Amino acid sequence: QDTITCLAAIAWKKNSLSLEKVQVEPPKAGEVRIKMTSTGICASDDHAIKGIISLKYPFIPGHEGAGIVESIGEGVSSVKPGDKVLTLAVPQCRECSACLHPKGNFCEKQDVIPSSGLMLDGTSRFTCKGEKIYHSFRTSTFTEYTVVPEISVAKIDAAAPMDKICIISCEVATGYGAAVHSTKVTPGSTCVVFGLGGIGSAIVMGCKDSGASRIIGVDINEEKFPRARALGVTDCLNPSNLKKPVQEVVKEMTGTGVDFAFEAIGLTETMVAAWESCNLSHGICIITGVSSPNLKFSLSAQTVFTGRTLKGACLGDYKTRDCFPQLVTAYLQNKINIDPLITHQLPFDQLHKAFKVYHAGKA
Amino acid sequence: QDTITCLAAIAWKKNSLSLEKVQVEPPKAGEVRIKMTSTGICASDDHAIKGIISLKYPFIPGHEGAGIVESIGEGVSSVKPGDKVLTLAVPQCRECSACLHPKGNFCEKQDVIPSSGLMLDGTSRFTCKGEKIYHSFRTSTFTEYTVVPEISVAKIDAAAPMDKICIISCEVATGYGAAVHSTKVTPGSTCVVFGLGGIGSAIVMGCKDSGASRIIGVDINEEKFPRARALGVTDCLNPSNLKKPVQEVVKEMTGTGVDFAFEAIGLTETMVAAWESCNLSHGICIITGVSSPNLKFSLSAQTVFTGRTLKGACLGDYKTRDCFPQLVTAYLQNKINIDPLITHQLPFDQLHKAFKVYHAGKA
Repeated sequence: QDTITCLAAIAWKKNSLSLEKVQVEPPKAGEVRIKMTSTGICASDDHAIKGIISLKYPFIPGHEGAGIVESIGEGVSSVKPGDKVLTLAVPQCRECSACLHPKGNFCEKQDVIPSSGLMLDGTSRFTCKGEKIYHSFRTSTFTEYTVVPEISVAKIDAAAPMDKICIISCEVATGYGAAVHSTKVTPGSTCVVFGLGGIGSAIVMGCKDSGASRIIGVDINEEKFPRARALGVTDCLNPSNLKKPVQEVVKEMTGTGVDFAFEAIGLTETMVAAWESCNLSHGICIITGVSSPNLKFSLSAQTVFTGRTLKGACLGDYKTRDCFPQLVTAYLQNKINIDPLITHQLPFDQLHKAFKVYHAGKA
Repeated sequence: QDTITCLAAIAWKKNSLSLEKVQVEPPKAGEVRIKMTSTGICASDDHAIKGIISLKYPFIPGHEGAGIVESIGEGVSSVKPGDKVLTLAVPQCRECSACLHPKGNFCEKQDVIPSSGLMLDGTSRFTCKGEKIYHSFRTSTFTEYTVVPEISVAKIDAAAPMDKICIISCEVATGYGAAVHSTKVTPGSTCVVFGLGGIGSAIVMGCKDSGASRIIGVDINEEKFPRARALGVTDCLNPSNLKKPVQEVVKEMTGTGVDFAFEAIGLTETMVAAWESCNLSHGICIITGVSSPNLKFSLSAQTVFTGRTLKGACLGDYKTRDCFPQLVTAYLQNKINIDPLITHQLPFDQLHKAFKVYHAGKA
């Protein structure tokens, strides 16, 4: 196995992303080298490039990816060259207390916050112009070839359409999974979704597929409302145009607050608004957004005892290697539909154009 | 039905409790007059008397009570004179969205915060020296006779021992219920309990009965440790004697944080400590304590998405009228044991002595 030279996007410093020729080393023991076929742009990538989520520069962004195994390191048994795979922003080592526990999925081998930017052995597989380049989320999908630990790869059905399926590895798992898996939204229930981007849209689809009777969508970008309505949102709210806090409006609209509130932005204000939108007795508030470091959100201490639930959910609480292939199969069997979540498809060398579309709020 | 004159404890103003002759009016439609046989002292009563929880003065404290129905108002059908009953700090109207929902128990007819201090029709049944006396939690059990709405009364087994059973209506339901019902503590799990008073002790018993393998008890009063150990606590921590925050010590003791953390004090610091003691992936933090008004507790926003759950729980999430009689029956059948939670029994006219024992941390 040789080092491969290919195109990759490198975030050299805050807000500086450029396409470069990089050298990608062969996989070491327990690692997999993947030829990427598609990747999605997630808000977390954008936040990492902007320095809102602090990763080590220079790094190759991207964690929502699909590809084909090019080569494997010593001891790798779950995938072989030629296999179609998804990259996993949270690994599943199957050995730690989180992996062995029936609930939750936040594997102790994860590398998100604080980020080492390195493989499990503490080194990097990327070089550019003689300089070591860091990984991000141990995936780094904004490249033609990447190297990831075996625990961060899931083999998927050979029939999977590689141009679309990448979004299952984050957007669909996180959003759809938050509704149908993290909290099983009940038929006839009322829901509110803060943020109508990719994750929020997938949450809306999950709420609708679960039989929610009312889905209130909240966003400050009203251009997102028509598509949100098409996905299942019954009422759209723009907090900028309201005379009261949005949580008060949601409480009035629903009488006693919603059964399920979802936060898909990562702002402390929307986390609090989601919590306060919930029914005091049985409301469930799910936080999927990742905030900047060192921020806190404050909840009223006196009304916490009334019964509400606040729960964080990462990738839909799915054990990633076990469950993501099942999500792909469900898509192939028309049990879940991801197509409405795909607004644009661009070749890799137009990554900057893709970010322009994303920043314009069109994606 | 006549007005009854009897002995009651009145909180005239902050920190001022005295035994007085009061007039107790007959029950109006939908109300029940009860001859109290026993009442417990709960921290919430103490907080109400001290003005930490704001109720309207003058009021008759107490919500943890057992008694015998003396008379009923028009339309009352669920109890009749002579029935043994528990008073319910949270009613079950069986009509509101909270009561009709399968989960949660915070009936919309509850009168806790902010408190009206009145019956459902907006008036009081108590008078003392010509002055109207407010109810508390629509129960007011520190009196020889009280009047409560039918929705705040549960008929219990006629064989129930009235001198002990009152504590089921709050302490046992809240504490034991938090462990076995609000969150079903799993066999072999690790738990931490903040506060080893009545609620905390009942939580410990619930954790032990659920098969928890390790129960860490936290209190600044070390006199509570021997009894806590007898109930099932495996490790006792006094935060005052630790060199690090207690949550860091709990994390070190358990490797990755506990499976279940319980807050049974009502302080914002212990709410945060309980949350931070939890396993990041699957930890569940249950808040049973009621804090002072207007206080907030702050959680790190960046680490909320990893999967933990924060849940408030009031009276163990039990639908009070449906479930409290079942708890009494379970006690009579030796399925749960409440006896270790009873440290002192005093006649009603020694209420001040009872508070002295309570304030000394001996109860």
